[in-house]
Amino acid sequence: MNEVINTLLAHRSIRKFEDKQLTKEQIETIVKSAQAASTSSFIQAYSIIGVSNKEKKQELAELAGNQSYVENSGHFFVFCADLHRHDVIAEMEGVDLSESLESTEKYMVSLIDASLAAQNAAIAAESMGLGICYIGGLRNNLEKVCEVLQTPNRVIPLFGLTVGYPAQDPGVKPRLPVSNVYHEETYEPNNEQFKEQLEAYNKEISQYYYERTNGMRNDKWTAQMASMLESPKRMYMKEFVEKKGFNKK
Amino acid sequence: MNEVINTLLAHRSIRKFEDKQLTKEQIETIVKSAQAASTSSFIQAYSIIGVSNKEKKQELAELAGNQSYVENSGHFFVFCADLHRHDVIAEMEGVDLSESLESTEKYMVSLIDASLAAQNAAIAAESMGLGICYIGGLRNNLEKVCEVLQTPNRVIPLFGLTVGYPAQDPGVKPRLPVSNVYHEETYEPNNEQFKEQLEAYNKEISQYYYERTNGMRNDKWTAQMASMLESPKRMYMKEFVEKKGFNKK
Repeated sequence: MNEVINTLLAHRSIRKFEDKQLTKEQIETIVKSAQAASTSSFIQAYSIIGVSNKEKKQELAELAGNQSYVENSGHFFVFCADLHRHDVIAEMEGVDLSESLESTEKYMVSLIDASLAAQNAAIAAESMGLGICYIGGLRNNLEKVCEVLQTPNRVIPLFGLTVGYPAQDPGVKPRLPVSNVYHEETYEPNNEQFKEQLEAYNKEISQYYYERTNGMRNDKWTAQMASMLESPKRMYMKEFVEKKGFNKK
Repeated sequence: MNEVINTLLAHRSIRKFEDKQLTKEQIETIVKSAQAASTSSFIQAYSIIGVSNKEKKQELAELAGNQSYVENSGHFFVFCADLHRHDVIAEMEGVDLSESLESTEKYMVSLIDASLAAQNAAIAAESMGLGICYIGGLRNNLEKVCEVLQTPNRVIPLFGLTVGYPAQDPGVKPRLPVSNVYHEETYEPNNEQFKEQLEAYNKEISQYYYERTNGMRNDKWTAQMASMLESPKRMYMKEFVEKKGFNKK
């Protein structure tokens, strides 16, 4: 174990922050760390919008489902899939790149690029003693988020990353058993083994919630997932993504 | 600056490795670090297949476009978008989750989840003195990759991560100017500013290639991108992804 791995393993989302803004230097270090991540064929298909304006953070917090820890954080980063830059390049170089930019393959590339960068940002922030929480809730209403952030075509805000000085100290949440996530040589387990692993994990998660809530909550992971996924959410997404010029062919 | 940020900023892809395999402990630390990353609503929608078998690595290296540094690395991790686990959950809990699992929204979630985990794995490996390279080339022929790795429905191998002891010491590749990637409050630059930033970056990148190749290579970034994107690649992807049960509605 080294300091880096200790930082990675100590991760837990922070949802309560002190009223203290990040400095310009902190923001720059976080952004540079994000940019240092690998990028598919050097395409750099993402951008980051930093929001510090209180009213704008409040507006985004509401759009994300009233997540007050967006509004009250030290800085709010929005990570976007971005192929707009490559539309500008098409103009500069006098070529037509639309077939490529509209492909599902390049949509995947931009999502992966943005996420690798975001995770570097998260790790950089945590290494500075800051807390983070990803905000997928932004995807509740992307049309509005795009308006607020004035994004052009071929840019999609994927999620936020709220960063600040932690005002809480939650425990680390237990992940799925390694044997359920990591397979050797081939995708191993049959469905029966899978179920046994998930049953064992259910017990672990129940215990975690039980202890954390003084016996008030007693969730199983599989039940939690079933209930979350039973009502499909954000079903406007396919059409929206295509309208923005992605994932069309 | 701290040790974590130094590790992040020192990243460069390694494409030549010593002939030395990773230990079980190293692999486990890397996988546990991957799992510690944030996951959307705790869904954990990914899995990792580790390949150490020499013939299998060779087969995957060929499928990825003869990338010998896959075959000769210390371990090869394949990161997969995985909602198969949630099909098993549907069975366990006696509910129908297909509408949700087939949505573009959940496709995005599984790509983002897998990528956050992968970047943690990459950072963990680098912190141990190992080198890494992402292998997007796996997407050249996913049908075959799925066969080799025996993945079930609703699992898509997204990319590989080849990890090992570096046998080269390349320089850090300069990223886009911060002002082109990071925007304050709104997505700022107009296209003219954008072009100026990209012209400046072209000069920096030309210089980088020039120095690195003793004057043999003199690429501009925008030209490199235009030439890469002019011939669309992997256009089978949309259909393939839907066939695997993702991104359908």
